[in-house]
Amino acid sequence: MVHTSKTGFPPTITLTTDFGLQGEYVGAMKGVMLNINPHCRVIDITHQISPQNILQAAFVLEKTNKYYPSGTIHLVVVDPGVGTERRALIIKKREHFFVGPDNGVFSFILDEKGKTEAVEIKEKQYFLSPLSSTFHGRDLFAPVAAHLSLGTDLKKFGLPAKDFVRMEWPRAELKENRLAGKILWADSFGNLITNITREEYGSLLEGNPILIKGAGWKIQHLARTYAEARPREPIALFGSSDLLEIAMNQGNAYQRLGIKPGEIIHIEVQE
Amino acid sequence: MVHTSKTGFPPTITLTTDFGLQGEYVGAMKGVMLNINPHCRVIDITHQISPQNILQAAFVLEKTNKYYPSGTIHLVVVDPGVGTERRALIIKKREHFFVGPDNGVFSFILDEKGKTEAVEIKEKQYFLSPLSSTFHGRDLFAPVAAHLSLGTDLKKFGLPAKDFVRMEWPRAELKENRLAGKILWADSFGNLITNITREEYGSLLEGNPILIKGAGWKIQHLARTYAEARPREPIALFGSSDLLEIAMNQGNAYQRLGIKPGEIIHIEVQE
Amino acid sequence: MVHTSKTGFPPTITLTTDFGLQGEYVGAMKGVMLNINPHCRVIDITHQISPQNILQAAFVLEKTNKYYPSGTIHLVVVDPGVGTERRALIIKKREHFFVGPDNGVFSFILDEKGKTEAVEIKEKQYFLSPLSSTFHGRDLFAPVAAHLSLGTDLKKFGLPAKDFVRMEWPRAELKENRLAGKILWADSFGNLITNITREEYGSLLEGNPILIKGAGWKIQHLARTYAEARPREPIALFGSSDLLEIAMNQGNAYQRLGIKPGEIIHIEVQE
Repeated sequence: MVHTSKTGFPPTITLTTDFGLQGEYVGAMKGVMLNINPHCRVIDITHQISPQNILQAAFVLEKTNKYYPSGTIHLVVVDPGVGTERRALIIKKREHFFVGPDNGVFSFILDEKGKTEAVEIKEKQYFLSPLSSTFHGRDLFAPVAAHLSLGTDLKKFGLPAKDFVRMEWPRAELKENRLAGKILWADSFGNLITNITREEYGSLLEGNPILIKGAGWKIQHLARTYAEARPREPIALFGSSDLLEIAMNQGNAYQRLGIKPGEIIHIEVQE
Repeated sequence: MVHTSKTGFPPTITLTTDFGLQGEYVGAMKGVMLNINPHCRVIDITHQISPQNILQAAFVLEKTNKYYPSGTIHLVVVDPGVGTERRALIIKKREHFFVGPDNGVFSFILDEKGKTEAVEIKEKQYFLSPLSSTFHGRDLFAPVAAHLSLGTDLKKFGLPAKDFVRMEWPRAELKENRLAGKILWADSFGNLITNITREEYGSLLEGNPILIKGAGWKIQHLARTYAEARPREPIALFGSSDLLEIAMNQGNAYQRLGIKPGEIIHIEVQE
Repeated sequence: MVHTSKTGFPPTITLTTDFGLQGEYVGAMKGVMLNINPHCRVIDITHQISPQNILQAAFVLEKTNKYYPSGTIHLVVVDPGVGTERRALIIKKREHFFVGPDNGVFSFILDEKGKTEAVEIKEKQYFLSPLSSTFHGRDLFAPVAAHLSLGTDLKKFGLPAKDFVRMEWPRAELKENRLAGKILWADSFGNLITNITREEYGSLLEGNPILIKGAGWKIQHLARTYAEARPREPIALFGSSDLLEIAMNQGNAYQRLGIKPGEIIHIEVQE
């Protein structure tokens, strides 16, 4: 049974990896999938997860998968434990499929309410042979995703799995009127994305006077758009993925503000 | 009415943005489009427009769109004014559709001869809800482009628009026998692309002795191919997009010649 | 005759170039192909071959093409001789098609056993007009690949070709118990990929004590997975493309070990 025959449109497989775009890795994976299911459609989410950054992969997966149609297969290969005993998983949730290593990349999917089906991938007939010990993206995960896209039942790939490796969101800490947040990463504009979520701190920060101080700069209230600051003025706002970010209108906050991923910023809050 | 039923092939949506490839932005936009029209085909032009560089986006759009089939939808999201009062547009020209902010990115499309149809996008039923104030690429432009690809009529998205924000090509200046051109950007080979167009200066420069001088190097005539210079010798030629560029055979002019984007170069011309 | 009518799935054209992702080059090529064959599917292998690195392009092509379905057309544009007398080729091997310049990029495909068909591309009706002297990727190779994807016979594009430009693999050298290998490039993890092949040296190196010494570090045996080293410990292993690489568990060997592409490493071997 071909997946396309049910829906009339090509089954979609998304790719989220830390392979970068410069070598043979991504191109090999795409070939493996098209060879198994020439009808599937491969969509790059990103191949520029910071090397081995499982938190970032889990975040990007959470913030993108929900926009895709039901039936989409999301392949995540950020896999520092490749070749070891770490399990390989297929997870089904909300009619989406997730394929990748059991290392925490699916944490935020698993945190969601609703039914979870999962299997540990074990059936070697779905792998490339020989199976390398360094590139399961090509030899195991890509062929499994492609077979899923052909309509192969989840249960054919292995036995039910539970007790997954989980990663907690690194929550910001509020002590008295001081909120300590961490810079998680910079986006391509140089916007510094923090771990401070709108869900937890939106009502505290939006509309109230705040104070964030750095070397030669300060921010005194939350903005709504990038453009409402003067050029090169630092601003703070909740971005499109509902995390607080430090940005700069027409400038690169990462290059200019002297703070970087991994560092802690403090926000004084006046309620 | 589905667009595909008319043509028999998938409607194409091209993407030109400054989002980079490293985060969730592009992947989210693609999901939004595939969810609305699972038959559409999304083609990346580039996501590496320099941040907020409207001129570069306008140029890349002009130099690529014309190669695509009629009916293609070109989505351009270089949008420093996101969340402000800047208008959101659909422009139809030569049976191509252009979707993006009214900030100058469509200048060179609008400059072309021929009929222009345009609407200001206003109809909220085509947006994601809630509409963020920082990411209209995902919440407004992507869904509008996807609905266009379903065959939804232009006029359904809003009222006719005119008086667009325009950007002029930053023309080179010729005074007596001295042509002053600006380095606009470097390509991935390190070729330094100038604002000197073949249309305006081709007949002046091609075949005539010229002189461009830099720190320790000079160029004395226009080349036709990169390979006709000696290795690491600087050359000048009109590139594939008909702009004069300073290049280096088997080398990176940007890294080696001591000139960079934003700088002015002078060409002495002998007619 | 449309290619799709034979196979029921879209004909695939893969792209391997050194154009980078930042400008109009790749987007223009994709448009040209979709305009000629709106049914074709364009897959990016990579656009980040190091500028003019023909060896790297030949390697990536060899390590990816074999995973694709029969009938796939592989377009390779790493073309420092564009506009000169270098020939343009279509090669057919193992029911795959290869399109690109005759400069060595097809060396490892040609080295394979089995029948080779090849033509020199000469028929101008398949090119864009005018043909630029600097961008045959857009004006010659892309349209030829698209016409091939429509089912146009190989022989229509020109006369049979032979005596191709060939590049040899830069083999490692073993003298007594000392193996001298070259660092070819670093991947996006910073793994330093050498020219030492598993085919030639696997049985010598695997399972035997070895010694690789650098500034402040040494490696004494071959690993099987990245994870079996301690964090930040340098290791050597045969990677997924069967080349020996120097890597670092949870670290970037390129940034931390003080060796870089082009350098020679020495491995003491005890049999």
